[in-house]
Amino acid sequence: MRAINVGICGLGTVGSGVFNVINRNQPTLAARAGHAINITHIGARRDNPDCQPGSTKVSRDIFAVVNDPDVDIVVELIGGLQPAKELVLQAIANGKHVITANKALIAEHGNEIFAAARERGVEVAFEAAVAGGVPIIKVLREGLSANRIEWLAGIINGTGNFILSEMRDTGRAFDDVLEEAQALGYAEADPTFDVEGIDAAHKLAILASIAFGIPLQFDKVYTEGIGRVTTQDVRYAEELGYRIKHLGIARRTEEGIELRVHPTLIPQQRLIANVNGVMNAILIEADAVGPTLYYGAGAGSEATASAVIADIVDVARTIDAGPEQRVPALAFQQHALSDEPVLPIDAVRTAYYLRMSVVDEPGVLSSITRMLSDADISIEAVIQKEPKKGATTATIILLTDVVQERHFQQTLTALQNLPTITEPVMTLRMESLDG
Amino acid sequence: MRAINVGICGLGTVGSGVFNVINRNQPTLAARAGHAINITHIGARRDNPDCQPGSTKVSRDIFAVVNDPDVDIVVELIGGLQPAKELVLQAIANGKHVITANKALIAEHGNEIFAAARERGVEVAFEAAVAGGVPIIKVLREGLSANRIEWLAGIINGTGNFILSEMRDTGRAFDDVLEEAQALGYAEADPTFDVEGIDAAHKLAILASIAFGIPLQFDKVYTEGIGRVTTQDVRYAEELGYRIKHLGIARRTEEGIELRVHPTLIPQQRLIANVNGVMNAILIEADAVGPTLYYGAGAGSEATASAVIADIVDVARTIDAGPEQRVPALAFQQHALSDEPVLPIDAVRTAYYLRMSVVDEPGVLSSITRMLSDADISIEAVIQKEPKKGATTATIILLTDVVQERHFQQTLTALQNLPTITEPVMTLRMESLDG
Repeated sequence: MRAINVGICGLGTVGSGVFNVINRNQPTLAARAGHAINITHIGARRDNPDCQPGSTKVSRDIFAVVNDPDVDIVVELIGGLQPAKELVLQAIANGKHVITANKALIAEHGNEIFAAARERGVEVAFEAAVAGGVPIIKVLREGLSANRIEWLAGIINGTGNFILSEMRDTGRAFDDVLEEAQALGYAEADPTFDVEGIDAAHKLAILASIAFGIPLQFDKVYTEGIGRVTTQDVRYAEELGYRIKHLGIARRTEEGIELRVHPTLIPQQRLIANVNGVMNAILIEADAVGPTLYYGAGAGSEATASAVIADIVDVARTIDAGPEQRVPALAFQQHALSDEPVLPIDAVRTAYYLRMSVVDEPGVLSSITRMLSDADISIEAVIQKEPKKGATTATIILLTDVVQERHFQQTLTALQNLPTITEPVMTLRMESLDG
Repeated sequence: MRAINVGICGLGTVGSGVFNVINRNQPTLAARAGHAINITHIGARRDNPDCQPGSTKVSRDIFAVVNDPDVDIVVELIGGLQPAKELVLQAIANGKHVITANKALIAEHGNEIFAAARERGVEVAFEAAVAGGVPIIKVLREGLSANRIEWLAGIINGTGNFILSEMRDTGRAFDDVLEEAQALGYAEADPTFDVEGIDAAHKLAILASIAFGIPLQFDKVYTEGIGRVTTQDVRYAEELGYRIKHLGIARRTEEGIELRVHPTLIPQQRLIANVNGVMNAILIEADAVGPTLYYGAGAGSEATASAVIADIVDVARTIDAGPEQRVPALAFQQHALSDEPVLPIDAVRTAYYLRMSVVDEPGVLSSITRMLSDADISIEAVIQKEPKKGATTATIILLTDVVQERHFQQTLTALQNLPTITEPVMTLRMESLDG
């Protein structure tokens, strides 16, 4: 069978990984794909010492790759929204299949890009955009195709998971661990994208879309970072049998779809609670198969390359097939996409962890529990910590049952107004993650 | 696009699950596959109260299904080797695609069946044969196609995992928990297939074949059951930071391929050590992506149906494509299959746990450690338990470094001949499961 010519745009961490893995495993790839996979053109503004292109053609202008008539598949690894979007649309216009690891691009412009690809009859594959080397896109689009997906919850940002894991293991504070993560190269100099949950929100928008068959709606993802989680909270959570993870959660409810990224208490005994360091994992609840979990490296040169190359093999295998023989970009045929609404955060239902500093005097705890009970919010657990020697405030930790966010926030405002509560109440959402 | 007609042979636990899930999720399936999926013919010797075929044609002769000219895809769910093999070969001869959940059939006759399917240009899919609803076949054949797989280790028999989990959680003995498993329907009246590891060996043969691109070689899998694991061993393992799991292990070494199923000590902190009850999980180490893990229900009506139906959707999607556009049965093109030899158990390298009853007198431990050190076997840990009140024998628990099985067994024989060792030495293999 004919050889497949691949053009790579961008020769950074992932690009060099793709180049190196393809060259190392070329016989294996050909044996799997039934086609030789050759990198014939690289577009990169500069060389990368981790990668020796040898006789492979290298252009400084990345658009030379998408305009190269010999290239069958364009791999977009430059990242960011522009010129990545223009590059991808140009490749599609030129009739080339596109593979990208660009989660921001897919989450924010995927609907437009997939429409262009459908129009031109080419494929846009994006396995590497979520959870690095974990083949979670394939699992959702194909492996679980029999199922109605009920919800999914993922640790889909390695930086955040590293920070929370370290805070728990060492008792160190957020800022301190963030610095370490930056020194280790796990976090960027500007860590906003990771610790504020924007990166996770991009990935969640993609996962939700292929899980539920809805258009990409990144702008509707509720996003909360981990910067306000303290070592105190991590410790109290442990004491109550929970662990704090930065989760992306997508859930189908009767009212609509929940899409949210926030620090979350989850029971310690769940497998996903034991996913530590920079590793990623996605737990999926589906009607036929029940819960399944997928775990692996969410980033890194060769781990991400693994996903990019799996897409290359898939595209190569069906390169001479018709579009109807390929898996639809968003898992469902275009005409079958659903217009189920995404719920505002106000309408979400979740349980809560509250940490309160209170005046150390009789009756304080009972006034708090009475207020919650009057608001029909059930209490699952309470711990009261006596003041440290010389201090005048005690700490109360309280876990609620599931309640609607809007109602909870109203009650919280009332609670916050109690004169016996001396500081802003710390609240974190809590999920049982059972079927 | 045209509707796809599916014939189901066998209406037991899995067959009824397939029927019910297809009927429940029909719109979703059509939206994913781009074809309506209709069950048009069921072959079953008797009815199943869990499933109402309604107007669907039912034949008491299962061969009527494979000979029905209107059926596009035959789903074989009768289990066992015969008449399943004859049925599948007849379906292939009739030009029908085949989907099966039959691990014994694929492990023992897969090479012949796949050859027949290649000859006839049809597909034989078998996602449900390993780990129930976990899409592990798809992951290995497609999701990780960029990689050279180094090894995999799986909890691929739910019955065995339930028994070992319960022994640990409750301190009860093997026989006692086995009875409970039988009462709960997790174990058969004759539990041999599960607890002796034959079922796991079938699945391991399949996994190894698609991981390494070797023909199916079930007869070369070394198999050891869990019946000899005692609650004492479970407890001592915990004390040393390990957990005992019944693992199927396939590993590529320079000398050849290891294929073995046996109870195994693994470090407690590994994610797979925390997979409990009847759940399954497979840990895969691959050169580009590193470690990844896949977890879910390994059995059950709808969980297994999930895998069967995913295969139906895949086959339906490419039903009008050529064979070269489908994923090869054993992941690699036929001409590229490798003849790497499977190693005999004698040549395997692994670490060991030893439990010895010894005469309680000075110098016994040092004579044991000297014998191991003279044999160049490194000791990783030792605990000596003093005799219980009134007893005259102490217990020594010892963990070795990695050693070749042949050499270990020779040393063990010599050790066993020491007059100070009063009972047969209990040995279990031990794996670190790190990269």
